[in-house]
This record gives sequence, structure tokens and C-alpha cells, in this order.
Amino acid sequence: MTRFFELQACDESSEARTGLLHTAHGAIQTPVFMPVGTQGTVKTLSPHDLSACGSQIILGNTYHLYLRPGTAVIEKAGGLQCFSSWNRPILTDSGGYQVYSLSGLRTITERGVVFRSHIDGSTHEFTPESTTDIQLSLGSDIMMVLDECPPYPSSVEYAAESANRTTAWAQRCRDHFAETGPKYGYDQHMFGIVQGSVYPELRHQSLEALLELDFPGYAIGGLSIGEPKPVLFELVETCTAMLPMAKPRYLMGMGKPEDIVEGISLGVDMFDCVLPTRNARKGQLFTWTGPINLRNAKYKGDFQPVDAECPCYACQQFSRAYIRHLFHAQEILAMRLASLHNLTFYHALVAACRASIADGNFKQWRRSFLEKYEIKQRKQHAVLT
Amino acid sequence: MTRFFELQACDESSEARTGLLHTAHGAIQTPVFMPVGTQGTVKTLSPHDLSACGSQIILGNTYHLYLRPGTAVIEKAGGLQCFSSWNRPILTDSGGYQVYSLSGLRTITERGVVFRSHIDGSTHEFTPESTTDIQLSLGSDIMMVLDECPPYPSSVEYAAESANRTTAWAQRCRDHFAETGPKYGYDQHMFGIVQGSVYPELRHQSLEALLELDFPGYAIGGLSIGEPKPVLFELVETCTAMLPMAKPRYLMGMGKPEDIVEGISLGVDMFDCVLPTRNARKGQLFTWTGPINLRNAKYKGDFQPVDAECPCYACQQFSRAYIRHLFHAQEILAMRLASLHNLTFYHALVAACRASIADGNFKQWRRSFLEKYEIKQRKQHAVLT
Repeated sequence: MTRFFELQACDESSEARTGLLHTAHGAIQTPVFMPVGTQGTVKTLSPHDLSACGSQIILGNTYHLYLRPGTAVIEKAGGLQCFSSWNRPILTDSGGYQVYSLSGLRTITERGVVFRSHIDGSTHEFTPESTTDIQLSLGSDIMMVLDECPPYPSSVEYAAESANRTTAWAQRCRDHFAETGPKYGYDQHMFGIVQGSVYPELRHQSLEALLELDFPGYAIGGLSIGEPKPVLFELVETCTAMLPMAKPRYLMGMGKPEDIVEGISLGVDMFDCVLPTRNARKGQLFTWTGPINLRNAKYKGDFQPVDAECPCYACQQFSRAYIRHLFHAQEILAMRLASLHNLTFYHALVAACRASIADGNFKQWRRSFLEKYEIKQRKQHAVLT
Repeated sequence: MTRFFELQACDESSEARTGLLHTAHGAIQTPVFMPVGTQGTVKTLSPHDLSACGSQIILGNTYHLYLRPGTAVIEKAGGLQCFSSWNRPILTDSGGYQVYSLSGLRTITERGVVFRSHIDGSTHEFTPESTTDIQLSLGSDIMMVLDECPPYPSSVEYAAESANRTTAWAQRCRDHFAETGPKYGYDQHMFGIVQGSVYPELRHQSLEALLELDFPGYAIGGLSIGEPKPVLFELVETCTAMLPMAKPRYLMGMGKPEDIVEGISLGVDMFDCVLPTRNARKGQLFTWTGPINLRNAKYKGDFQPVDAECPCYACQQFSRAYIRHLFHAQEILAMRLASLHNLTFYHALVAACRASIADGNFKQWRRSFLEKYEIKQRKQHAVLT
């Protein structure tokens, strides 16, 4: 039997590493960036587009899919892969984060969380058991335990109480999954989530308790929600130092290209973020010399591609001037071309990290990347300030 | 030298015919449906999508492109084909229709029309000469003369005055084009436009005057703007009966599938309409048994494709339930999949007309199509009333 996670190369200058995640819907090369397909689709893109971008695995949001179209419809379709025609791996969150960020009224108890739908105000409850069942029905290759993500800042008292609840819920998720087993006859995996806000001691406790539950992978949650960047990276380092080498680590909800490279150097294997697709829809495109805002007047008569070396359809077929025109004319094709490009960039970025880790020159690659990428950002900053 | 229009087969039971339109960007089989790419893109679709749908030629709107991104940008790009990466034929209107329908203040004189931009309120003027120049710069394979489309209803006096002005403008367009010649070294063609509102006598006069100007093709304008359907078809019949067999006929701005089949039977070769793409964005999908509204509750758990025999990506890869979900979740992919499907349907519809005309069984095909298509519509009507 193939192991779920296969560690392949480790960087000598940092904690960076490459690996392979084996799932029923295919193997995933890590480090990996996972586009967010909130409602069963990565906004503006088709499964064909995603494959063309180099996407290996996409996220689904349990909260959204549970509310609309509803678990029953997706189960009847045979799971989210069949429903959405994305026949590669899918990771789903537990729904907890959206309950905290989108739902109006919500009540957290030891039993679970009662909340109101942001769509129609109807009342619902998520428990560790129910979110496990939903994710099983969604056919997720990688499921997440129900957790609570305390806001930033939170008092140490509240963060401790919350982290303990997340641990208790993690155990119930794991036990429930162990009892029910996978839904569709193929392997499904469940990750634990480390919480503890910005308190290293709480992160330690959370992590130790989760390690005892022996999950096949671990996520670092509750970050990228407003805390200073140095604090974030210190906490990531604290966590990855304690996590077993042989299991994948997933840093939830981050981030910018330079942050992902930093996360990789700290030993993170998996990333997700709405940034490349959300910012694409606003006209921000990522390039190797930094992000550009394609809506700017200077691109009006610029007939070069966004990035001459980029293999994406947007760069191969269209000019900056044309895509800029589409943005100003509020044409949907603009958002799609920009999303295609940004995801292609993000996937190429982590692919370059993987290659340099495997080749033993991640340190040099990283310095060279940051020099090129940040010089442009400083220039832009200088112009703006 | 290849003729611009090559008549191929004529139906014995009607005025329907097939032909080939030879342009510098490729040959077009007629009857043809032309998707509308108002702002240099057919809404939600890429050129790759359009080719996959079977699109042979698309429309560009001179009014929109002149205002944004501006003629200079498109000319610098080498024409609209280069700018938009659609390397097949393009037809542009003269901009007149949008001036009348979108622009607030406008003043029509013999010289031309002064109007205010719907984008920023700035003042502009279109003359027969300037709209010819713009269309030359756009690199249109088929350009339209500047015309006035009088509203429905219009008095016979105003309609006569307006039709005379359209004829005078047509002559100036033709003369200006004859002086300047094509812009990019390849053939560009200009069509005259028959006007005259709902008055057969005015249509006669308009048409006779235009025939003297000897355009390579003729459009029938000023219809599908609110007049009763029988009146429309009677006027189309009046026009096609007078138009030379050897030249293509283009009925502007129509319409529904059943109307296009009717138009073909009356001898029309070219059609354009925003209907398949606009209605797609609202959730209306066309099938051989009539249009369906995919937003309806009955499709919630319907895992069949929209049309099992349709070769489009939407039907090959996705279910009604999934696309319905995308519509309810307001996902852009919904609009794109629906647009892909509807254009595929429209192109298949005119292809079926072409095939049956060539095979000599257009009459039977048409009856069989209308029976299947209309039965469903009557049923829906019966349910609704």
C-alpha cells in the first residue's frame, strides 16, 4: 500500500521540503498551492481551465456547499468531483471558518455551533460529527476537523478555551470518521487543525494533543487574520518544528507570493488563498517582477503580453492593452483571463520552489526571486509614498 | 479572383438558399448566425470558446469600440482581429443604431449625427465618412453604411425623410470607401442598409436607390424593434424579393430560433442577435424541444446534460443540476457555460438549415423542427396560462 505522504527532498539551508501526497484522485506534488473553489467552482474558471493552469487539487467550502446546493444534491451526484466535473483531488474545510466570518448570529457550545445562513437567515447547526458526514458526502479526498478560529486579537483565556474546544472537536471528528469510514469506497483523509491564536504555549499544547490523535496530516489554522507578519511566521516556525517530518503540513488561508515562499522555507507543504483569483477579478496580475494593476492608463497601448514567458492562454493570446480594455469595459473575459494567469503564476511559483529544493539550490533561488520580485514592489511603494 | 459571394443551393419550396461568403479571414457558410461581440469580445467567451461553438464570424459594435478603447488603440494593434485575437471574419455595424438607442442627447442632420457618450457624456460626431474610417481602422471584413433606424412606430413622413437620409449617407459612405480603399492591404466590403420603417413603398424606394449604388451585399435594417411579427416577415419578403440573387442579404438584429428559420425561408443569408448570449446569462438555454429556464427548481436534482446530443463543453461535462447551482450561486461559469451552449445550438440550427437546403428537404426539416420546438413552447404556455 502506498503511503499517503511521501517525503522526497529536504533543503539543507531551511526547513523546505518536497513530497508527494497520494490520493484516490491522483498524486499531488508538494509544496502545492490549492485554488479556492468556494461554491464548487473556482470563480470564473472551468475544470479544463484549472488543469491548463497546473492546478493539482482545489478547495471546496463545506459551509457554502452545505447551504447551496445542499449536501443531498452533491451526494446524489456521487460527490463533488462528479458534480463539478473536476476529477482530481479535492480538499474541503470544515465550514467552521465561514460560520465565524459570514454568519450573523452564531452560538458556540461544546456540542457544536448554531448559526444562521447568510443566504436566507435559516438556522443550522454544525457539530464535529455533522461536518464530518457532510465532507464524507462531498467525497473530499482531504477533510478538515471542525475547529474554532478565534479572532485576532483574542485574550489568552479565550484562546485557550477555544483551542481546547477545537482539540475536543478534533477527537470527535476522528472518532466519528473511524466509525463511519469513507463514503464512496475510496480513501478519504482527515487533517487536524492546530489553533492557539498568537500564543506559542497554546500552540504547543494544541499541537501535542492533536499529535496524540495521530492524524495523517496537520493544518495550522487561525493565522493570516490580521496579526503582524513576523508573529505569523514565528508561530508557523513553532508549529512546523514540532510537527512530524513524515506528515504533510497545511498553512490555511495564506497568501501573497513572497509569503508562500517564506512558508515553504519554514517547512509548509500546502497553501490555499483566494488572493490570486480575487485580486485577478480586480485587475491585479502577478508577474515575476511583482504584481501589476492592469487597469492603469500606462497599459492602454501596451501590446506586450502580461508576461512574455508565461505559458497561460491569457499571455499566449492577448496583450495587456486588450485585457485592460476588457477590465474597463467590465467584460467577464477580463476576470477569467486574469484568474487563469494568476493561478498559472502561483502554480509556477511553487513548482520553481519544488525544483530548486530538489536541486539543492532553494536558498539561491529564493534570494534571486525575492530580489526581482521585491525590487519592483519597493519601486511602486516609492512612487506611491 | 474569387467572387465575394458564391450562391450554392436554392430551395424549391421557399426562398431559402445556401452560399459561401469569401473574406480575407476565411470563408463563411451561409445561412450564418453571427454572435455579437459588442466591445471586442462576445460576452463571457474567449476566441477559443467561439471556435469550439462553431462561430464563423462575429460582430463588433463601432459605437462601443470607438468610445472604448478608441479607434487609435485598435488601429495600433493592427485591427480588431489582432487586438481581440479572433483571427476569423468580423462584421461591424456603423454605430448608428447604438447612437439612437444608448446616447442621451443626439442631433441628426444631413451632415451626420452628434451625440453624447453614454460612458462620460462627452460630445462626438459620426458622419458617413467618419464611421467608414473607423470601420476601416477596425479592419472589418464587412462594414455597414451609416444609417438611421427610425423608432417603431414612425409616421410615414418621418420614415420617408429618414430613409432618404440613409440613402444619401450610403452614397457618401460608398464614395469615401472608394476613395480611401481598404486599410490593411486585404479586402474589406461595405453593405448598404434598406430602411423605410413598416412602409412597403418606402422599403421599395430605399432598396431601388441602394441597388443603383451597387453594394456587394445588402442589410435589412430597422426591424425587430417592436413591430408585429407578421409585419416584420412581410417586409422581409418584400425586400428579399427585390434583392439580387447573387448578393448576400443580412437581416439585422433578429432573433429567436423559430424566427431565424422563418427568415432563412424568406431568403435571408445572415443573422445577428444578442438573444442567445444575453438570455444565456439569465439562465435561458435553447434546446431542440424549446428553451428551458435552468434556474427552475425542477432541475435541482437533474443530472442529465442540458441536451444529451449537444457537442458543447457544457453538455459534455456538466449536468443541469450543476449549471443550475452555478446560476443560483451567481457564479460566472454559469453564464459562460450557458453562452457556450446557446451559441452551439444557434450554429447547429443554421447548419441544419444549410444541410437540408443542400439536400432538397428544407420544407420537411423546417416542419419537423417547428413541430418539436413549438410543441414544447405551447405546453409551457398552457402551463403558464
